[in-house]
Amino acid sequence: MRRSQLFTKTRKQAPADEVSKNAQLLIRAGFIHKEMAGVYAYLPLGKRVLDNIVQIIREEMNAIGGNEVNLTALQRREPWEASGRWSDEVMDVWFRTKLANGTELGLGATHEEPLTDLMKQFISSYKDLPAYPYQFQTKFRNELRAKSGIMRGREFLMKDLYSFSVNREEHDVFYDRVSDAYDRIWQRLGIGNVTYKTFASGGSFSKYSHEFQTLSDVGEDIIYVHEARKIAINEEVYNDEVLADLGVSRDELIERKAVEVGNIFTLGTKFSDALNLSFVDEQGSTQRVFMGSYGIGPSRLMGLLAEHFSDDRGLVWPENIAPMRVYLVRIGTSDQVVQKADKMYEFLQSKGISVLYDDRNARPGDKFADADLIGLPHRVVVSERLLEQEKIEYTHRASGESLLLTEDALLDKLV
Amino acid sequence: MRRSQLFTKTRKQAPADEVSKNAQLLIRAGFIHKEMAGVYAYLPLGKRVLDNIVQIIREEMNAIGGNEVNLTALQRREPWEASGRWSDEVMDVWFRTKLANGTELGLGATHEEPLTDLMKQFISSYKDLPAYPYQFQTKFRNELRAKSGIMRGREFLMKDLYSFSVNREEHDVFYDRVSDAYDRIWQRLGIGNVTYKTFASGGSFSKYSHEFQTLSDVGEDIIYVHEARKIAINEEVYNDEVLADLGVSRDELIERKAVEVGNIFTLGTKFSDALNLSFVDEQGSTQRVFMGSYGIGPSRLMGLLAEHFSDDRGLVWPENIAPMRVYLVRIGTSDQVVQKADKMYEFLQSKGISVLYDDRNARPGDKFADADLIGLPHRVVVSERLLEQEKIEYTHRASGESLLLTEDALLDKLV
Repeated sequence: MRRSQLFTKTRKQAPADEVSKNAQLLIRAGFIHKEMAGVYAYLPLGKRVLDNIVQIIREEMNAIGGNEVNLTALQRREPWEASGRWSDEVMDVWFRTKLANGTELGLGATHEEPLTDLMKQFISSYKDLPAYPYQFQTKFRNELRAKSGIMRGREFLMKDLYSFSVNREEHDVFYDRVSDAYDRIWQRLGIGNVTYKTFASGGSFSKYSHEFQTLSDVGEDIIYVHEARKIAINEEVYNDEVLADLGVSRDELIERKAVEVGNIFTLGTKFSDALNLSFVDEQGSTQRVFMGSYGIGPSRLMGLLAEHFSDDRGLVWPENIAPMRVYLVRIGTSDQVVQKADKMYEFLQSKGISVLYDDRNARPGDKFADADLIGLPHRVVVSERLLEQEKIEYTHRASGESLLLTEDALLDKLV
Repeated sequence: MRRSQLFTKTRKQAPADEVSKNAQLLIRAGFIHKEMAGVYAYLPLGKRVLDNIVQIIREEMNAIGGNEVNLTALQRREPWEASGRWSDEVMDVWFRTKLANGTELGLGATHEEPLTDLMKQFISSYKDLPAYPYQFQTKFRNELRAKSGIMRGREFLMKDLYSFSVNREEHDVFYDRVSDAYDRIWQRLGIGNVTYKTFASGGSFSKYSHEFQTLSDVGEDIIYVHEARKIAINEEVYNDEVLADLGVSRDELIERKAVEVGNIFTLGTKFSDALNLSFVDEQGSTQRVFMGSYGIGPSRLMGLLAEHFSDDRGLVWPENIAPMRVYLVRIGTSDQVVQKADKMYEFLQSKGISVLYDDRNARPGDKFADADLIGLPHRVVVSERLLEQEKIEYTHRASGESLLLTEDALLDKLV
């Protein structure tokens, strides 16, 4: 894409009311726009980053048998009444709205109830199980305070996967498969080394649930990390009983701040009991479906990645998350330079390399500052001086390594 | 995908309360689920169809310089007050909701106001224009009645593109480019021959707007079609003045029912005046930005396509819209047949051909009925009897043509 065709601009200062680093950087670089506290629009570069994160998660969900769906934001009250959650005391983050005829509706904050209700159409026999629907869906949560940029929103994107199994044994196998898929996702996102499977409080059907917590100074959670075993314990269950369960001692654990990027939860028959989701087993007797839920917040992840992969000059996107791979800087406006830069733009794209081409008539310093702020992995410069040497200047954003290369050598770097 | 891994089932009867043919078929085939009137969830096969439609539109929007964004559903009242539309009289389809602190919000029914407000950050000079942001966004409209399945929803997907231009001349050029892009979209969706660019009422800044109307017995609009010139006139402006403008006479026109699948509209400075969106021109004087809006409803299109491409046995998806291309039917459960069918499934997928593999232990009649109802373009049957002949039975869903083929000949059919 040419900068001249991209409508966003960078800005030197973040808005005064924006206190989170992720939103400050992403707003300055033109990736997002703050509509109101906790509610952000995604601009072209931000949309691409979010799409890249979503696609990685999607591939891993499909690989374990997930079926992608898209449920609705508008929700009837009946399934929520059945589960006892149609109540501001229980669900204190509901947004409510009304149909023209006065019927009260909820705005989806989570989807256990409508999905359990929906699955009654498709599940009647053990032959219909297991089932693994998932979605990427905008969630609405009426948070009192929303000061963490896109890391805690009132309107945000969530990947929610649900499992429907014949019994706990089948459930447990899938639960572990999701855990493994999540580990692959953190690896692919470049945060595998700082993300810990963390023991957290369970529910009626399991002693523990598991969170995936990424170490971060802006984390709202406190976890106790066991480096060697690559696990952690959330402070809410950091007690002698849990330490004994896991066979670890306090002196092996380090207290850290962390951000919850995912969670997996054994729901058991909580919702299938409430909404009467049953199946007939091989012996002909009726059983409740055994459920689990598995969340990841792609927009929160994007915020975390912006915090994690950045320096004092701006964002530093990893290769597979970046909106484009190359920031092509044209310095000068002579026919020769313009032709050369245009050709380079076409050439790289013809090799399947995505490029943001700074074809504006702006000062070199401004272009370099934008390249750093936007944070594409590779910067390529075409200028009069370089043309004379028949070279291209290549700079790696993350390491700062800078080289004068021939076209062939540049291509070797990029493919 | 294997049927055994797809959680949806087909059903013989549509729900009694569902009166529209598109929703009846799509629900019976397991593509969608009715959450409430006008609010539908997309199940795995339906999600794929919708994604295919979206991708075609996206490619054509990008080809004319569109920048994809994603605005928010939750909307502040201020921009709507500025334009005079924060009012139930003017916007009678608003859903409203409230923040926890009592602040009233709207649920996006359309996005002119928040986008115009947002663009003030990025537009200050003629150098910043033109700009063409667009999005695929869930819209919420509090319709009193919603009986057309996914063709008129209370929650539905919309592609909305907006243009920001220096003046009417620049606007007009882009307006025509969008019109051409829309024509390419209808062609690619297989409804080019029944979709007419239709003159409809304009606003303060243009005598006409243009709708794209697809002929359909379930259409809610009446249009007057000029076959030879491939244009039409909406009944709302079917009068002598318009006939004279277009140089056509009543006896050349045929009255038809039609569905509005897209529209393009010259907004002029209506919203830039209201929200103070200006730029400094080359002469240094301040001008209002000249705007246009361009909508397409992908979920409505999906409903229309379901109505249009179907027969008494079910859906008949065109090649580029179908959720998968091949419905592979395995008849029999012998090791030999299972092996052969499994191999065929892997083989077709390895050739890049998407397959829905009916690996269930169901009766052949049920499998054939499902193949017809789900409506993938190609049906391939593997059975004991066919194995003996070293043949595969191939059936084309649209034409009913059925052939016994070798594997090589089958591949020739499909690639």
